[in-house]
Amino acid sequence: VLPQGSLSLHPPGTYVVVFTSRLDAGETPADYAGTSARMFELAARQPGYLGADTAREEAGITVAYFRDEESVRSWREMAEHRVAQERGRDEWYSRYTMHVARIERSYEFDRA
Amino acid sequence: VLPQGSLSLHPPGTYVVVFTSRLDAGETPADYAGTSARMFELAARQPGYLGADTAREEAGITVAYFRDEESVRSWREMAEHRVAQERGRDEWYSRYTMHVARIERSYEFDRA
Repeated sequence: VLPQGSLSLHPPGTYVVVFTSRLDAGETPADYAGTSARMFELAARQPGYLGADTAREEAGITVAYFRDEESVRSWREMAEHRVAQERGRDEWYSRYTMHVARIERSYEFDRA
Repeated sequence: VLPQGSLSLHPPGTYVVVFTSRLDAGETPADYAGTSARMFELAARQPGYLGADTAREEAGITVAYFRDEESVRSWREMAEHRVAQERGRDEWYSRYTMHVARIERSYEFDRA
């Protein structure tokens, strides 16, 4: 399950959560991939969630967009998501950072 | 040349530029990789540039951190960078979005 709304433009005032991580093993454990896919599924049902992009090479980067601070907070506190966060810290990640930021300017380019 | 400062924590008030892109060809042209590496080299010399992370799968995602709005602007207007931006639109990207956002909250986790 890849995130929906890939490469979408979001207006000023929207929030972006930037999550960068390094996996413990250096590669993706099978149960990590399953949990990650499940989280994108759940997020898509979360009010105020606007979409996300994700890619992993040396670092994994996920950027997720939300309508406002309240929807960022609701997603963080969602029960099944909290369980996944805890498994992340206990089992999968050697390091991560998260930055919650308010969008001030947006640009897009489309060849078409 | 990979960006320095990978997975660093940046304080509230710092700026993050989120650049997501899709390549025209679906894969990385050789001259694209060279220009991209050169841009990370140049950015590292830019006052106010604090580091970046980058990864590409279906989408490419680069998140670059800056001290303030002024340093975001200086980097955008830097001559050799402007040439690369134009080549990006003319030759490499089918689509991209850029979001300039002000960090409000930051978290990190480190197993160590």
